[in-house]
Amino acid sequence: MREIKGGITAPLGFLAAGMHVGIKKPPLLDLALVVSVREGPIAGVFTRNRVAAAPVLLDRRRLQRGTGGAILINSGNANACTGARGLADAEELAALAAGHLGTDPRAVFVGSTGVIGQPLPMPCLRRGIPALVKRLRPGGGREAARAILTTDTRTKEVALSARIGGRLVTVGGMAKGSGMIHPDMATMLAYLTTDVAIQQRTLQRALVGAVNPSFNCISVDGDTSTNDSVLCLANGMAGNPVVRAGSVAAAAFQHLLGEACRVLAMQVCRDGEGATKLVQVDVVGARTQTAARLVAKTVATSILVKAALFGEDANWGRIMAAIGRSGVPVDPTRIRLSCEGIPIVKAGVGLGHSAERRLARIMQRREFAVTIDLGQGSGRARLWTTDLSYDYVKINASYRS
Amino acid sequence: MREIKGGITAPLGFLAAGMHVGIKKPPLLDLALVVSVREGPIAGVFTRNRVAAAPVLLDRRRLQRGTGGAILINSGNANACTGARGLADAEELAALAAGHLGTDPRAVFVGSTGVIGQPLPMPCLRRGIPALVKRLRPGGGREAARAILTTDTRTKEVALSARIGGRLVTVGGMAKGSGMIHPDMATMLAYLTTDVAIQQRTLQRALVGAVNPSFNCISVDGDTSTNDSVLCLANGMAGNPVVRAGSVAAAAFQHLLGEACRVLAMQVCRDGEGATKLVQVDVVGARTQTAARLVAKTVATSILVKAALFGEDANWGRIMAAIGRSGVPVDPTRIRLSCEGIPIVKAGVGLGHSAERRLARIMQRREFAVTIDLGQGSGRARLWTTDLSYDYVKINASYRS
Repeated sequence: MREIKGGITAPLGFLAAGMHVGIKKPPLLDLALVVSVREGPIAGVFTRNRVAAAPVLLDRRRLQRGTGGAILINSGNANACTGARGLADAEELAALAAGHLGTDPRAVFVGSTGVIGQPLPMPCLRRGIPALVKRLRPGGGREAARAILTTDTRTKEVALSARIGGRLVTVGGMAKGSGMIHPDMATMLAYLTTDVAIQQRTLQRALVGAVNPSFNCISVDGDTSTNDSVLCLANGMAGNPVVRAGSVAAAAFQHLLGEACRVLAMQVCRDGEGATKLVQVDVVGARTQTAARLVAKTVATSILVKAALFGEDANWGRIMAAIGRSGVPVDPTRIRLSCEGIPIVKAGVGLGHSAERRLARIMQRREFAVTIDLGQGSGRARLWTTDLSYDYVKINASYRS
Repeated sequence: MREIKGGITAPLGFLAAGMHVGIKKPPLLDLALVVSVREGPIAGVFTRNRVAAAPVLLDRRRLQRGTGGAILINSGNANACTGARGLADAEELAALAAGHLGTDPRAVFVGSTGVIGQPLPMPCLRRGIPALVKRLRPGGGREAARAILTTDTRTKEVALSARIGGRLVTVGGMAKGSGMIHPDMATMLAYLTTDVAIQQRTLQRALVGAVNPSFNCISVDGDTSTNDSVLCLANGMAGNPVVRAGSVAAAAFQHLLGEACRVLAMQVCRDGEGATKLVQVDVVGARTQTAARLVAKTVATSILVKAALFGEDANWGRIMAAIGRSGVPVDPTRIRLSCEGIPIVKAGVGLGHSAERRLARIMQRREFAVTIDLGQGSGRARLWTTDLSYDYVKINASYRS
């Protein structure tokens, strides 16, 4: 596997563009388009939030057909809680893009991110789409990646290549999202392209397998915003024999796609709103994987733990308190905590001032790992979290003003 | 029912004292003692956190006997995650107090609040207890209420009287806790005294009935810190016929105790760390009460919702997103939101800019109510929450430094 340049337009046969149409203040880009020169199988994973946004409802329906050719994404407006009008707007956007691209509207997928509850400003979108189609180019990945951002401070892109079925296969991707610290925002979008030849069913299975340990582990409730979507579009232009479920090639592609998702997910987490730290939370020794995940999630989302991370305060008692309230029947006298291999707590009791001083030094790093051993079994889970800073509150108290 | 002065020493036959013994920096009070002139039934409700602090473990054991005469509480150190040593320390403190009071050690209950994971500074506590016993006086309620505080900015006290069984019965109380916004901290202690004559079983039932809609509804995970405790000590000095379960007198006492808990709970919520708002979250129209509570809890603990409350940002989409991810199978097209009677969302869709402007004006108030109607049934729940401010992060990033 090799990292290459080009982001979402790195695979063969993909074009992209991004531009400012007027949803956000000029000169911020707010509309992106990704197009494959030929249609192919598409896979998707969407929010489990019951209050799903219009683009999610539309894409879910489109996905039943299993074939895609283009993805149109706006930022600055989530088109969520917009009712029948929102759905009609999303359909009109897809149809407009299809008209200018000369493709079937059912092959055009849509995505939105931004403020919830306001209708899309359709006039500027209608004006913008023809110009956006004209801007499409093979090197347009970066521009598209910029156009899907909201409070993000940098673009998130990836492109990886590997040999599959005797041919060089590339996966490209872009994402937006300012981290796991706001799991209930209309926040996380990720789009992947690939030139692999693959069955739709196998692509869908690979995407689910790639999203679970990546995007679903940075944002602990990553599947819960109104707009969260991950799409992967394949066009077969690599010329490999079609990848089928259960084959060696399927495993190789799964690995490639998984790595691309992991790279994007880490980029999202590092760019968390106001975040100054990226902390890996490993839970081991749980009775089950579910129990491990629940403990990891409770610790990783505790705002007291997050505030201590920001303050570089070796206040491990907050981690213990979070473990205890997770709902998992832990035995405090079996719990061990360590940080980057330094033991902090043994049998539920702190190991004293020198351990705390070492912990405090590690906490000054930008990235480190905390390990929680419950001493009850072999279940394990890994999540990533960020700290909770003044800037987080600032960004989110004044998000719309 | 009548509100009176005197706090925890308002009922007949109770003495209290508070002083500085050296756990916190001078001149901060850090040790409190509440004593009844005669032993009586005691009721208790404790954290459900699996990582329970030593004083909770000791009090749970003491409660099996059902009789109490004194409560000794320190602030500045939670005596949590301190293992066998912590439990031995708690027992020694109770025995010391019992020795100086001339009572049975099994009638002395203990409480601790503060930093988790450090052993109690026993030398200063041993020196302090005899002096504290000497300070006991009928008007010592305020002093005791001051001595149990940590990051609180004010004391929380209550005293209510009512006629029960032909006699004037008083309930007094004090609490500490800086609000529901830090549900996983060793945070919430409340102590109640009463001169009512009552069976222990009836007192316990009344306390559970009083805590559920009060303390358990401000702190959404209120039962989950390592130290959370509510104790109610009754000494029978009002001279009423002993209150028995199921009687009219039991209902009257339940009402009195419930009101005392509600008053203290609101005081805790208003003094939330860094809080500038107190917001009542009402969920109605849920299929079940459990569903209503889950939705209310998800909204009330969403840090994005809390940040919007602080910013006075009429960003109701965050409330919709929180409802959608609560795990309750809501139907977005049936959801209505209103704020202080002003409709904001109908059938899952926002009611436009003028509704939002009215919402923004209401959000400038210090206290207001949000109502979520799920339109699915008759289940309802009420919680109180606070906003998430810069000061919250500041307080909790530097809590121990």
